[in-house]
Amino acid sequence: MLRLSTRQPDFDKAFRRLVRDRRESADDVARDVSLILSDVRQRGDAALLDYTRKFDGHDLETSGWRIDAAVCREAFDALQPDLRAALELAAQRIRAYHEAQLPQNRDYVDDAGVRLGAIWRAVDAAGLYVPGGRAAYPSSLLMNAIPAKVAGVERLVVMTPTPKGAINPLVLAAAHLAGVDEIWRVGGAQGVAALAYGTQKIAAVDVITGPGNAWVAEAKRQLYGVVGIDMVAGPSEILVIADAKNDPEWIAADLLSQAEHDPSSQSILITDDPVFADTVADRVQVEIAMLPTARTADASWHKHGVIIEVESLDEAPALANALAAEHVEIATDNPEALMHAIRHAGSVFLGRMTPEAVGDYVAGPNHVLPTGRRARFSSGLSVLDFMKRTSFIEVGEQALRAIGPAAIALADAEGLPAHARSIELRLGI
Amino acid sequence: MLRLSTRQPDFDKAFRRLVRDRRESADDVARDVSLILSDVRQRGDAALLDYTRKFDGHDLETSGWRIDAAVCREAFDALQPDLRAALELAAQRIRAYHEAQLPQNRDYVDDAGVRLGAIWRAVDAAGLYVPGGRAAYPSSLLMNAIPAKVAGVERLVVMTPTPKGAINPLVLAAAHLAGVDEIWRVGGAQGVAALAYGTQKIAAVDVITGPGNAWVAEAKRQLYGVVGIDMVAGPSEILVIADAKNDPEWIAADLLSQAEHDPSSQSILITDDPVFADTVADRVQVEIAMLPTARTADASWHKHGVIIEVESLDEAPALANALAAEHVEIATDNPEALMHAIRHAGSVFLGRMTPEAVGDYVAGPNHVLPTGRRARFSSGLSVLDFMKRTSFIEVGEQALRAIGPAAIALADAEGLPAHARSIELRLGI
Repeated sequence: MLRLSTRQPDFDKAFRRLVRDRRESADDVARDVSLILSDVRQRGDAALLDYTRKFDGHDLETSGWRIDAAVCREAFDALQPDLRAALELAAQRIRAYHEAQLPQNRDYVDDAGVRLGAIWRAVDAAGLYVPGGRAAYPSSLLMNAIPAKVAGVERLVVMTPTPKGAINPLVLAAAHLAGVDEIWRVGGAQGVAALAYGTQKIAAVDVITGPGNAWVAEAKRQLYGVVGIDMVAGPSEILVIADAKNDPEWIAADLLSQAEHDPSSQSILITDDPVFADTVADRVQVEIAMLPTARTADASWHKHGVIIEVESLDEAPALANALAAEHVEIATDNPEALMHAIRHAGSVFLGRMTPEAVGDYVAGPNHVLPTGRRARFSSGLSVLDFMKRTSFIEVGEQALRAIGPAAIALADAEGLPAHARSIELRLGI
Repeated sequence: MLRLSTRQPDFDKAFRRLVRDRRESADDVARDVSLILSDVRQRGDAALLDYTRKFDGHDLETSGWRIDAAVCREAFDALQPDLRAALELAAQRIRAYHEAQLPQNRDYVDDAGVRLGAIWRAVDAAGLYVPGGRAAYPSSLLMNAIPAKVAGVERLVVMTPTPKGAINPLVLAAAHLAGVDEIWRVGGAQGVAALAYGTQKIAAVDVITGPGNAWVAEAKRQLYGVVGIDMVAGPSEILVIADAKNDPEWIAADLLSQAEHDPSSQSILITDDPVFADTVADRVQVEIAMLPTARTADASWHKHGVIIEVESLDEAPALANALAAEHVEIATDNPEALMHAIRHAGSVFLGRMTPEAVGDYVAGPNHVLPTGRRARFSSGLSVLDFMKRTSFIEVGEQALRAIGPAAIALADAEGLPAHARSIELRLGI
């Protein structure tokens, strides 16, 4: 864990180093991925069979290519009642938040008599990558699938590896609840390629979202433009801004809820009280020892954990803006002012009773958020990622007379005479 | 020019071939670009000096790195009055359309007593690439710069090559009008790298938009994630849906207004009248001969032009949806019904008096639109490309009691005990 204070003479340098460190491994998988993509493009299902045999250790012809809707329903019906209720509450709250996100169409006539507007529509089909094994979270499935369905996507396809045929029944239950239309047992770059190009069995989609390992992320990157994708995601992070009035145990748990995700996760505390900072640091060690996820949490906290002491929390927004963290918790009496001063953050958690974990599951806003300082320019997943906008223009004769001559002048100046002529002919000039 | 009819027995096959043909050259510039990016990242301004000497034939230390705001104002003041008025009308109409696009923030308390919301903010800085030479269009500068300024971007930087020191004064005039804050004489992949990474002289930006050659496009692709970028753009295209009541000369001009852009541009006509189709085809030949841009227009029409005869225009929407064209002109008496049936299009031009060229300059909606079938999943440039959304959550004690237990159940099921503990501690359980 790194301990910094804005009073120390070399703070600026140390903080700049922290801001620059993206904790992203530069796995050089680009060439491998590129070969897999072109192989799936050319050989289709035959390539999927081969890669699944090689990487996941099962034969799709024997295990079956798809997981049936009935299997998902059974998984849902078999849930313990409290877990089923929890999943239903999460789904209902995520749906409500994302329904309020739906954009408005526009259609109006302006002063020049020109009719202008824009129509938002869902993409026809979306693909959702769901990792296999430990990282297959039902909550992530809900967070990706529900916005797609709220947007109006008619065909929602899940692509997921089932190593040696195994799959997490919780994920299947979540797929049932979210209304996923197809689930294919194909993972990795080959699964992403199948979604983008389509194969004999699997129809192509228009947008691909969802988390994955370095191969999956690189495949999405390379296919950006063939399909739409969600933002490139890196290791998760939390910035907690807390004064000394907080219970240090609570704040320690908040820091660890990020650290337990992955050894490359990052938890940062900014506080204006050095004694509180010490207490939280101690408490983190105590808590780690009690966690079943101790190994991951300890690795993350040891390597990437940071505590920054400031003289006043007024210094926090400038630091927070430079970090542009995925999650920002503001545990103070008046979090409102700090929130408005923090321009760059994926999601903000206000007040002492809002631990980040409620946002991971049941609050409603999406938990797919920009990492690695990308909150400077990108947003959490939303219905807009599954929609696109068509603008439209309708000009009558009178309006064309009003605005057409300016277009002709500009077309002439740009050396595009056919542009000018298409308007001149209509104006009889 | 390719002539198709939905009556011909092999129509489906021929049409599928047309849909698949993206007309995008697969210039293999990835390695060159990757070397330039890492060179600029490491050597900064020294690398920019070298590349500019090599590719643009001038020395930045002699010619100057920046173009002064005063030079832009002079270029604007020196414009012919009608051209200046045209540019001002275009800017004013683009501004009005994009101001109406600004998204609404949200802030509400739901039934469970949870406060939820989202705040939209502009990125701090945006970079706009402007090509040198022939393709430096003042209209493109307005279409990229005005949405950024309307979004609230404080620092808008133009990066443009000035081969042998030369630059189009019209572009400078447009930069003055749009309120561009900095103009640097650096082009190519090196210019894009400077925007993304920053150098000693040039501060990094958060989002990069604007057209460019294969090197520029590849540089943006590779830097996607380091910064935000607009959609990958390919050759331009228009689909005109027209019945026999149109003046064939008008429709020919519309087709050519796309063809004159570039030899790889594509113009497609769908009509329900074979005689009208013949007349337009003849008229295109006559018009081409009169155009100063004949060489480009002829190359595009010859190689990529298409006329599709349908039995009824009711067949048009299905074809249009498969093509998902950048521009769709609907020149019929009742274009409304067709527009609503066409789900995938960048921008739609309604009725006989709305040539696509008015949209290029003065209608108001953006002329930066998805090409190469990307209208299936992406939208024209808008203020949203220069903004990002931060969600927020505020839970009080009572609300945490209502929704917290579900989060605990899900965290336990996902094997994330610190997540559960951060809520349990607050609920005293």
